[in-house]
Amino acid sequence: MNTVLQLAHQHIRVLEAYVPGDQPSGGDWIKLNTNESPFTPPESVLRALSAEAGHLARYPNPRSEPLRAALADDLGLGSDRVLVGNGSDDVLNLLARAFGGRGKSTWQSFPSYSLYPVITAVAGGGIQSVPFDRNFRLPVRKLIEAGPDLLFLTCPNAPTGVRFPLSELGELATSIKGLLVIDEAYVEFAEGSALALLSDHENVVLTRTFSKAYGLAGLRVGYLLGSPEVVAILDRIRDSYNVNRLSQAGALAALREKELYRERVATIKERRSWLTEELKGLGWTVYPSEANFLFAAPARGGRSGPGVALALFHHLERRRILVRYFPKHPLTASHLRITIGTQLEMDQFLKEIKIWTQDAEGQ
Amino acid sequence: MNTVLQLAHQHIRVLEAYVPGDQPSGGDWIKLNTNESPFTPPESVLRALSAEAGHLARYPNPRSEPLRAALADDLGLGSDRVLVGNGSDDVLNLLARAFGGRGKSTWQSFPSYSLYPVITAVAGGGIQSVPFDRNFRLPVRKLIEAGPDLLFLTCPNAPTGVRFPLSELGELATSIKGLLVIDEAYVEFAEGSALALLSDHENVVLTRTFSKAYGLAGLRVGYLLGSPEVVAILDRIRDSYNVNRLSQAGALAALREKELYRERVATIKERRSWLTEELKGLGWTVYPSEANFLFAAPARGGRSGPGVALALFHHLERRRILVRYFPKHPLTASHLRITIGTQLEMDQFLKEIKIWTQDAEGQ
Repeated sequence: MNTVLQLAHQHIRVLEAYVPGDQPSGGDWIKLNTNESPFTPPESVLRALSAEAGHLARYPNPRSEPLRAALADDLGLGSDRVLVGNGSDDVLNLLARAFGGRGKSTWQSFPSYSLYPVITAVAGGGIQSVPFDRNFRLPVRKLIEAGPDLLFLTCPNAPTGVRFPLSELGELATSIKGLLVIDEAYVEFAEGSALALLSDHENVVLTRTFSKAYGLAGLRVGYLLGSPEVVAILDRIRDSYNVNRLSQAGALAALREKELYRERVATIKERRSWLTEELKGLGWTVYPSEANFLFAAPARGGRSGPGVALALFHHLERRRILVRYFPKHPLTASHLRITIGTQLEMDQFLKEIKIWTQDAEGQ
Repeated sequence: MNTVLQLAHQHIRVLEAYVPGDQPSGGDWIKLNTNESPFTPPESVLRALSAEAGHLARYPNPRSEPLRAALADDLGLGSDRVLVGNGSDDVLNLLARAFGGRGKSTWQSFPSYSLYPVITAVAGGGIQSVPFDRNFRLPVRKLIEAGPDLLFLTCPNAPTGVRFPLSELGELATSIKGLLVIDEAYVEFAEGSALALLSDHENVVLTRTFSKAYGLAGLRVGYLLGSPEVVAILDRIRDSYNVNRLSQAGALAALREKELYRERVATIKERRSWLTEELKGLGWTVYPSEANFLFAAPARGGRSGPGVALALFHHLERRRILVRYFPKHPLTASHLRITIGTQLEMDQFLKEIKIWTQDAEGQ
């Protein structure tokens, strides 16, 4: 064995890396695979970026103070309850380092965001999972019985888009002694948030992002809301300049565009409802999504299942339409995850599905 | 004790955070404390940032491939020998996680970049130090005897600016079994690099940054050069979108401005020589710097020492000139670290020093 590899920690040498959704470099794809926004940044954000670019010789504000203050102000929280990261992945990673991994009992519901097992492994531990049933209801009892030191949940859930009731999240927060991380990456598209839990539960943290509703995935800005004690701990282990000047300036400018983003979110939600009905009309099973994507089992010739889902995935790929397919688990293998894009993209997507459906019927 | 704090790992609860140099928010400071560039980004970089900003709804290239390829091409290396990070701090942190900390023997020469002990502590271990002598020569024998699994060196050194001979670095690389990290944050201002060691020593990695010579501290881009095996290991544990779109685009554009940056570096080096002579003329002791700063012991009334350095630090601060002072160690406490800024800033700095020197003589 190569000697330089032997220098690395054993748990690092054996871990499986996270595999992000394809980011094709060509521009002619209809890209519905990573839940990005179909909208370009507003003019005010572009102006803020231009204005900041002249100052790039200087280090950023190390604590992203103005952005923390603006987020805190928006949410009616103290700014000591806000931490900003280089995307919410950065924040999740810090949580795994401080509270999970080696010697800690780290849990997730499964399937969920496939980053959690990776960051737990990098932190020197394994993650354990409570599987969802077919309805993707939160397995509250089993999660409590697991007795986690650290528990990752995505709500609205990925890949289903289903939101868990606040009462169930509250029960979890009360009943577990460990830290409950509620990953609210898609919260702006949902009918509710777990924000209310923060005041009574110092063991609850929420993570959020500018990548989805704010359409700034390329800028890498996420944040955490939690108790001042948790924020202080994470502040001590994050990179001291973890969020660059442009990211801070762009996110701040985006926060000032509330009305515009409200309209954009409303558009996505309407389109989501419409697409849900269209797919159901084709015989698909579609989970009730509160996110900017649908999780749905395609049907063809009256049949659905992993073979059908995979066939459609490949058909779409040949037509340069990218969706996400998770073949590894029985709960996901019959489904595709489809980002809500522009109306034109959705029309094109539907058109291809109809061709594919009819192809089968003609066989 | 607060229960939520008890949930964090013990080694995280007790660690001391890194303290970056002051980043005052007001614009009227002469800021010579964090070794930033006095030059604003070239037009071509600003244009590249503007062009990229329209694409921010999409995730970045997860591996920063075009930037890796450009760096590799510039240096005549395979692109599998390059890793890009969210500043070189990100890369150093990854190295500590993969190769240092818990269960590993991690070493540095001391004093050095004060981040190394912090990232080692976050990785669950302690760092040990071989102290420099007054000449700040590399303690090669002692470092070899230490038998490090991971050894951090800064070259040109911080805070002194002194460069270690390539032969000594080569001897270290040959004689230690562990990973030798040579932090070349200031290499563009130096008369040589350790790049030549890479071909024969798979246990050597170099880290570099766009924050200093390229004047893009606010953009957070750093990179590592090393063996493909080390790069592959770090690729598996870094955040999958660790470098944002604007950082990738800005750094790429900067790489295309070689001639401009060569001139800028030449200007800094000339100014560094001039300031060195001026300070020596005032009776200061100045280390021979190959970086964009000077490390120098102020003298007043024929005396130098910690009291003199501290007095000048405060005098300058009152005149809104920031330099860096490291009071904690006898090897540094008599010195100030002064970034080479604009000529106007240097003139102002010298003027204040002369006032302060004369004040003493008038007493």
